[in-house]
Amino acid sequence: MGELELIAAIQRALGTPGGRVVRGTGDDAAVVRSRPFAVTSIDTVADGVHFDLATCSPADVGHKALATALSDLAAMGAEPGEAYVSLALPPAFAEADAIEIAGGMAALAERTGTTVAGGDVVTAGALVIAVSVTGWADSADELAGRDGARAGDVVGVTGQLGAAAAGLVVLGGDMRTGGGDGSPHRLGRQGEAELVARHLRPQPRLDAGRALARAGATAMIDLSDGLATDGRHLARASGVAIEVEAEALPLADGVAEVAHATGRDPRALAIGGGEDYELLFTISSERWEAAAASAGVPLTRLGRVLEGNGLRFAGRDAADLDLVRGYGHL
Amino acid sequence: MGELELIAAIQRALGTPGGRVVRGTGDDAAVVRSRPFAVTSIDTVADGVHFDLATCSPADVGHKALATALSDLAAMGAEPGEAYVSLALPPAFAEADAIEIAGGMAALAERTGTTVAGGDVVTAGALVIAVSVTGWADSADELAGRDGARAGDVVGVTGQLGAAAAGLVVLGGDMRTGGGDGSPHRLGRQGEAELVARHLRPQPRLDAGRALARAGATAMIDLSDGLATDGRHLARASGVAIEVEAEALPLADGVAEVAHATGRDPRALAIGGGEDYELLFTISSERWEAAAASAGVPLTRLGRVLEGNGLRFAGRDAADLDLVRGYGHL
Repeated sequence: MGELELIAAIQRALGTPGGRVVRGTGDDAAVVRSRPFAVTSIDTVADGVHFDLATCSPADVGHKALATALSDLAAMGAEPGEAYVSLALPPAFAEADAIEIAGGMAALAERTGTTVAGGDVVTAGALVIAVSVTGWADSADELAGRDGARAGDVVGVTGQLGAAAAGLVVLGGDMRTGGGDGSPHRLGRQGEAELVARHLRPQPRLDAGRALARAGATAMIDLSDGLATDGRHLARASGVAIEVEAEALPLADGVAEVAHATGRDPRALAIGGGEDYELLFTISSERWEAAAASAGVPLTRLGRVLEGNGLRFAGRDAADLDLVRGYGHL
Repeated sequence: MGELELIAAIQRALGTPGGRVVRGTGDDAAVVRSRPFAVTSIDTVADGVHFDLATCSPADVGHKALATALSDLAAMGAEPGEAYVSLALPPAFAEADAIEIAGGMAALAERTGTTVAGGDVVTAGALVIAVSVTGWADSADELAGRDGARAGDVVGVTGQLGAAAAGLVVLGGDMRTGGGDGSPHRLGRQGEAELVARHLRPQPRLDAGRALARAGATAMIDLSDGLATDGRHLARASGVAIEVEAEALPLADGVAEVAHATGRDPRALAIGGGEDYELLFTISSERWEAAAASAGVPLTRLGRVLEGNGLRFAGRDAADLDLVRGYGHL
């Protein structure tokens, strides 16, 4: 199969363009009928750094490459539109695997209403996938940045935390059959598989992000690097301090079991482990109920916004958590 | 320097966002006030494949990565808007070189009215740069695709051909001090340097592309792979045949000297050598004069569009040229 045939096969795997697309793949550039505000992010994943083909499938890689980019649109509250994919493949990379990467991407694109409207396939020294996504909004007020948190706001998070980090621990073969205290862990094969799926197949919170931005979220960020790091980004961009109640952290099912079996603090997996791709947001307390009613996912009230700077934890044993930067360091 | 400091240094090198950008780097995604049609392309360059850091500077690489993407907007006739840059760097890559890549990009961005509005910097097994560019148009009629060429149109090209291929020959150290016929070539150090610059620093024909699309070009494509290959792409997309007069080919200065010194056919460098990034277009003959008056660069009438398919050469010794696919094969 030559380069042009591979590109054609990938195009077939990616499906047909959506209604906004006036010209799709096959021209020098795609032409898309726009809405008033374009919201764009580019994200990159590389073999051996963001994934390892020894522990995931090419379809997982395609899913993750698009999911991480779409998660940025979720964090702005934008409606997903188009994706443009750069696929840099090592010379010996199997064409069937390249097509499977495109297939993993296409499945997520279809589920999220995203059109893969363009791409580029090149040879390179390593497998590197960059995905640029554009979402749309009719007004800038519909969107949320990182810089609008104000003292007095409450801090919330979608879904549960720590599952992706726990899944990575499982994938790494770090689970012992006996717990740190000698008792067998009770997670089971099914529970482990669910955590691994949360690591390999993150789901961008697109609907929740749009609902929260429209409900008046003053600031929002997706948890790609973990609450400890991303919370600090939001605090710095807004010029405020964020205080999180350590006991309020919503631990995902199975996180406690993995933490106990491997001698970790489960809260550290939840705040230092990245790649949960949940949304951290701030909002005035009067708007909390409306936000919770429209978000479509469970929201947890984590803490509050204060004058000052940085992120800190409050509550019993909270001082330990201030040291967490990433689960690699635990 | 940590990752965040490197990103900040790259952001400084890239300059401040333009007026359309409501939110730039530093948020989850950029927000841009749009115009009715968004025109987007993603392009990728990889070390050892599209450039070689042994023969070019990091600034050259940055320039080329953005130039190849912008050239796709030129071929559509779109006005350049924003660029989003994915920089995958090997672990040992010098930070100063990464900043120089951004600087080379920034200089071209400024000269073309492009804003680098977002990016991603990651570690990877190889240096790979993907650039997604978005341009804008107020109407789809202002744009040219590949598919509108009709029998009876004339075929034209901007500028001169073969300089980038000749520059690559010079860079490869393939020039002999004596010509194929034993006489010294008369190009000189200055002439060689100009050809090398045409290879390392291609200039996207943005103004000419917009002028030609507005003047009624029925189809247009940028010459990234060379006239032989790209002309076939245009012919196939339009469902027509393209006939090029071999003697009409506008050879760039110095191409004949490089060809003679290295035993090549200069016309083969012009049609098989890629990366000239000139624009090949078709237009009705009545509109040619108006197009030539507005293009801002010299246009050459290359041939004509016929019923049929494929690309062929007409004129003396033309049959030889039908075999050319790329200068690598000459």
